[in-house]
Amino acid sequence: MFGLIPKEEKFFTMFKEMSANITEGARLLKEMLDNFDDPQASQRRIKDVEHRGDAITHDIIQKLNKSFITPFDREDIYSLASALDDMIDLIDASAIRFIMYNVEKPTAEAKELAFIILQSCQAVEKAVSHLGGKFEHIAEHCVEVNALENEADRVCREAISRLFDEEKDPIQLIKWKEIYETLERATDKCEDAANILESVVVKNA
Amino acid sequence: MFGLIPKEEKFFTMFKEMSANITEGARLLKEMLDNFDDPQASQRRIKDVEHRGDAITHDIIQKLNKSFITPFDREDIYSLASALDDMIDLIDASAIRFIMYNVEKPTAEAKELAFIILQSCQAVEKAVSHLGGKFEHIAEHCVEVNALENEADRVCREAISRLFDEEKDPIQLIKWKEIYETLERATDKCEDAANILESVVVKNA
Amino acid sequence: MFGLIPKEEKFFTMFKEMSANITEGARLLKEMLDNFDDPQASQRRIKDVEHRGDAITHDIIQKLNKSFITPFDREDIYSLASALDDMIDLIDASAIRFIMYNVEKPTAEAKELAFIILQSCQAVEKAVSHLGGKFEHIAEHCVEVNALENEADRVCREAISRLFDEEKDPIQLIKWKEIYETLERATDKCEDAANILESVVVKNA
Repeated sequence: MFGLIPKEEKFFTMFKEMSANITEGARLLKEMLDNFDDPQASQRRIKDVEHRGDAITHDIIQKLNKSFITPFDREDIYSLASALDDMIDLIDASAIRFIMYNVEKPTAEAKELAFIILQSCQAVEKAVSHLGGKFEHIAEHCVEVNALENEADRVCREAISRLFDEEKDPIQLIKWKEIYETLERATDKCEDAANILESVVVKNA
Repeated sequence: MFGLIPKEEKFFTMFKEMSANITEGARLLKEMLDNFDDPQASQRRIKDVEHRGDAITHDIIQKLNKSFITPFDREDIYSLASALDDMIDLIDASAIRFIMYNVEKPTAEAKELAFIILQSCQAVEKAVSHLGGKFEHIAEHCVEVNALENEADRVCREAISRLFDEEKDPIQLIKWKEIYETLERATDKCEDAANILESVVVKNA
Repeated sequence: MFGLIPKEEKFFTMFKEMSANITEGARLLKEMLDNFDDPQASQRRIKDVEHRGDAITHDIIQKLNKSFITPFDREDIYSLASALDDMIDLIDASAIRFIMYNVEKPTAEAKELAFIILQSCQAVEKAVSHLGGKFEHIAEHCVEVNALENEADRVCREAISRLFDEEKDPIQLIKWKEIYETLERATDKCEDAANILESVVVKNA
């Protein structure tokens, strides 16, 4: 008995570390867009967070390799690690696009999407924090992630709709359309992680 | 014994309800593009169908939470519910784009794609209708969905190719390219659902 | 005992055949872009390879249907077959775009991406070749696929960044942006296959 529970808890600890790291990335993205005084420096900081995420993901997979007993299905541990990894990847991809496209000033809608991403990451972090404890609390945070994804979808759609009404330069239009879509995809990845967490709850109910 | 079979059948009934609802959405999309007299009203009706889909998906997941015995793997019930949900989401996303981009008149290719989507949804509905019965019939409808997806792929590719040859306004080109791609992605989602149905057949063969 | 092992080995043989076929497709794509003397003919050859891939995928699924015993989880066999199928689909989709968009001359970056795709397919082929043998060798080739995907990501990002700096014709910009993204997605599909192979290792460790 002794030794098993601490090992299981190690997985929960790693997932908590991973999701706290993602929230840090989302916080940096929101800060980057709110201030935009040194976007290159912000993007580099987000890239560092993304690398830290890769290292944690790698550790989780390594640990999975060596564990006979896991707190929930091996495949789900693998899927959850991948989904969390996708979240930080999309936050990084969003930040990169502001540099790649030489954006001068983020729009209000971009800032709004960055704020929704931060809230989604915080909700995923809360859901993950209940992995070792009361599974029933996970579901409510997943519902929150779903609602935020719907909200991001609406903001993104309205931003793109306005872009087609107002932006006459097609190259600017292409850039901004992709920026909005990348930010929105970050919230899709939060929803994917929430869906996996929900299915873990379902399986272990 | 008593009580178990009815419960299992409840899942099949819910999946049938879900796929009938999707076909209704696809029928409305085809009608919207064929007439296009009041696209806003059509889009709202499709959105209602999408909301009904969300409710059914939610019921399936709730039922899964409370069921000890399921007619096939819990994970597959979960995946199938998600895939069906994605189908109606993409039908809705297609309809939205005609409003969002202020389309004046749908092209012949867009109408053709809407018709292929309707046929794919009908094939998925037929496959789902065999879930409680003869699993071997499922495979043939899945083959049909795959063929329709290939057809949609070809129509989409030719439409985009023609667009690049003929459309000189880059903003119109961007709009139509995305409309064709969204319609085509709806058939991809039908194929994803068909693939899950096929793997259910494989596992339960 | 007798009879079972040969049957298991049949799956490995089919996966090896499948991945060798993909490498052939990637080799043809690289050749197409390097020479570009008759792109239509090259594209048709790649399409033939893609059709052969469909046939092998179909055989794997058929075999899965009839097998009581499989060398690893049925679901993983199914997922791996799908992932390999996606790889050749994206190689085909890349080739098609050069025809569809009437490209006159491939860029250096497109050629570089085709070379990375070839290397990724070769690494996946090597990983697959160890399926029947030493599972621990699979992981190292998967690491290679991951590194190549990062490299493709960087090349694609720089190519698109340069495109926005230099290309003044928005329609050309749209074409090339999508060509680079499609090539990059081919390496994403290699990574997806590598991830499935890694999870097979994890489960069977």
